[in-house]
Amino acid sequence: MEEGMEPGTVRPGGRTARVRAAVLQAAGDALAEHGFDGLDLADVARRAEVGKTTVYRRWATTTGLVADLLDDMAEQSSPRTDTGSLDGDLLANARLVVKTLTDPRQGALFKAVIAAATCDPRAARALHRFYATRIEEWAPCVTQAAERGEVPPGTDAAEVIRAVSAPLYYRFLVSGDGLDEGAADRAAGAAGAAARAGAYGS
Amino acid sequence: MEEGMEPGTVRPGGRTARVRAAVLQAAGDALAEHGFDGLDLADVARRAEVGKTTVYRRWATTTGLVADLLDDMAEQSSPRTDTGSLDGDLLANARLVVKTLTDPRQGALFKAVIAAATCDPRAARALHRFYATRIEEWAPCVTQAAERGEVPPGTDAAEVIRAVSAPLYYRFLVSGDGLDEGAADRAAGAAGAAARAGAYGS
Repeated sequence: MEEGMEPGTVRPGGRTARVRAAVLQAAGDALAEHGFDGLDLADVARRAEVGKTTVYRRWATTTGLVADLLDDMAEQSSPRTDTGSLDGDLLANARLVVKTLTDPRQGALFKAVIAAATCDPRAARALHRFYATRIEEWAPCVTQAAERGEVPPGTDAAEVIRAVSAPLYYRFLVSGDGLDEGAADRAAGAAGAAARAGAYGS
Repeated sequence: MEEGMEPGTVRPGGRTARVRAAVLQAAGDALAEHGFDGLDLADVARRAEVGKTTVYRRWATTTGLVADLLDDMAEQSSPRTDTGSLDGDLLANARLVVKTLTDPRQGALFKAVIAAATCDPRAARALHRFYATRIEEWAPCVTQAAERGEVPPGTDAAEVIRAVSAPLYYRFLVSGDGLDEGAADRAAGAAGAAARAGAYGS
């Protein structure tokens, strides 16, 4: 249940994996409903129908639980779209970000983990790992575009991918301006235009 | 003490204005030290050397205090830089944003108010008003650049200003990538290149 994850994905693994999946699902629900401040391990155990001792032993703190949730979100996230053109790929990325952030549960969940990261270094490190994974997943769009001659050789691929997300997260977290398909199209279009102009040359 | 404000600015006004200035300064200090969750009206009154009753009567809640702090930050913020060229103006803006977000007190204060906005609608509205004010202050850089023929007529000025800040806030709040002069230069350069290419045409 995160940026790029299919709902209802079946996970492999035995009882330990099933317990983890149930607890992380419950943690995500609780975060989306009450934010990081309202997160409580006993409440998560109840929601997941898992023994409280198991949750305390395995995750110990709410920060530990958020960090594991973010690592799981990174592991479970889906592969990038490959449309064959840079503009198409960046647009697919931008629309996925808007879809994720405007989904009521996922939007609330992302706000909760980003807020947690502002005041907790361990949550911050897990958040940064999550985004590093997503950026790495999408960066080949740009390196392949450079091979096709769509952008200058040496274009910083990670920076172009960040540039697609940045205006969308800025609206989401900071300015409060609308987050719709138009915003996605403009974010992708601007990142592509700046990349073609050589603004992300390394 | 915020994006674009000179430290030590002398404010006009009588006792009421002095009390407000002392309380908002103390609120900013407390937010920078302990975040929104640690904000406490009695502690702010003590720091400001103002009667607790005065603070409770005038601001009532921590959210009310944060909203007033943000409105004051918007009122006190300094005018934009006018270098005579779009690239120069956007670069000045980007460097100001980086300077603000990397300043220990101001960076912590911005993280605290942005985190508050993720879980409190009143704080969110005040945050959005603050950024609307800053965007409005800097937008003439772009309209004047359009008049000089540097960008296509009809370029969405507010969107270009948002595009300068967005990658810097994305690093600050989301991805954790470095926030230095190089990031500022690249943010300004990419926004200018995309604007010249017509990516912000309205």
